[in-house]
Amino acid sequence: MTYCIGMQLDRGLVFMSDTRTNAGVDNFSTAKKMFHWQVPGERMITIMTAGNLATTQAMISLLRERSVTKKDRDPSILHETTMFQVARLVGATLKEVIAESSVNGQQSAEQFSASAIVGGQIKGGEPTIFLVYPEGNFIEITPDTPFFQIGETKYGKPILVRAYDPQMAYDDAVKLLLVSFDSTVKSNLSVGLPFDLQIYEKDSFEAGRILRIDEEDSVYQAISSGWGDALKEAFQHLPSYKV
Amino acid sequence: MTYCIGMQLDRGLVFMSDTRTNAGVDNFSTAKKMFHWQVPGERMITIMTAGNLATTQAMISLLRERSVTKKDRDPSILHETTMFQVARLVGATLKEVIAESSVNGQQSAEQFSASAIVGGQIKGGEPTIFLVYPEGNFIEITPDTPFFQIGETKYGKPILVRAYDPQMAYDDAVKLLLVSFDSTVKSNLSVGLPFDLQIYEKDSFEAGRILRIDEEDSVYQAISSGWGDALKEAFQHLPSYKV
Repeated sequence: MTYCIGMQLDRGLVFMSDTRTNAGVDNFSTAKKMFHWQVPGERMITIMTAGNLATTQAMISLLRERSVTKKDRDPSILHETTMFQVARLVGATLKEVIAESSVNGQQSAEQFSASAIVGGQIKGGEPTIFLVYPEGNFIEITPDTPFFQIGETKYGKPILVRAYDPQMAYDDAVKLLLVSFDSTVKSNLSVGLPFDLQIYEKDSFEAGRILRIDEEDSVYQAISSGWGDALKEAFQHLPSYKV
Repeated sequence: MTYCIGMQLDRGLVFMSDTRTNAGVDNFSTAKKMFHWQVPGERMITIMTAGNLATTQAMISLLRERSVTKKDRDPSILHETTMFQVARLVGATLKEVIAESSVNGQQSAEQFSASAIVGGQIKGGEPTIFLVYPEGNFIEITPDTPFFQIGETKYGKPILVRAYDPQMAYDDAVKLLLVSFDSTVKSNLSVGLPFDLQIYEKDSFEAGRILRIDEEDSVYQAISSGWGDALKEAFQHLPSYKV
């Protein structure tokens, strides 16, 4: 499994992904799942992936090669004119990779399946985020659904729903993401530290802060242990149900 | 889907189940998923079910008929001598019902699948809870895993893990279950109110308080809205992550 969140704030976008990959619980390792492309002053695009690692790495490599090899430069993630076109490109590439691996039809297609979160901003447009499905189609973030999750989405969702606020500062947004990731890590072995974090400031057209947060991080530790205590205390203050 | 929890406390057992059943989001209704059998002074057994409604209803009916019809009285849930034997009976009955429906092999067996939580106490033994799988086998609760969940288990698990305490009063245990159920209801349409609640006091050998908690319940409303506010406040008090 995997856990990635792409979140839209009034002031920009925040992305966080875990780094654990596994083929069975007896075979796990660490792999980056967050990638970005930028043309400073013109575009910044971040992609996070979940699913079969061979599929997602092939997709990222194809997108990269097509953006650096001269003769294959078209279609290129660095030249699409809108984020919508970028999402189409990512969807088409993802679908192509899955189809290539799936010579044995539907069942093997599922085995090689993957999905992606694609976010960023291209000059002339607003910052936005897309959730790209293995079939190549996608949905765009809206104020009603201001964040997308992929991978193990359930454990960490309730706190996102309760505490999200579009006007949040980045510090608070990162705290919220860390709480959501921490709840997930505590419940599912297939999601693990370190976490990759990226912040994109609206209209900056370049990658903002990029951080890797590991288990040694003192603020993460304080949030993780503090959240357990805070939950217990919040729970104490609720009315009891007399039975 | 469904959501049921069976929880062991030092002072006894607490059971809670939702009541929503559905065949697609356009076809849902309310069905009881919690059932009990008792011989006051001698035994109290509670069963909660998740999965295919035809399967779980057939299983409950078979267990009931075998306990009331004279000629079929053996094997009977009212005559097994230990909770372990009761779990074996429930497992065998569940497996039998699934096999009966599954004339088309493995795939249709999955479609008719179901699981159950079986808890209670029989004179001469301690109160205990079993989680019964569709294959008819089962696991028993231990101090390391002091509660079982079936159905949509993920959204409501983090708070259970954080706030459970074996010495809890019933009032607090019910509050904890309501918080867990509330988080699940807010995230999954296939889990819904009203909730059925049953409390079994250790060595009482009879059903304790049995309640149905619906949306109009003022304490539930206070817990549901209070929990959102409490979470937000707990979140505010965590350290921010400076980026």
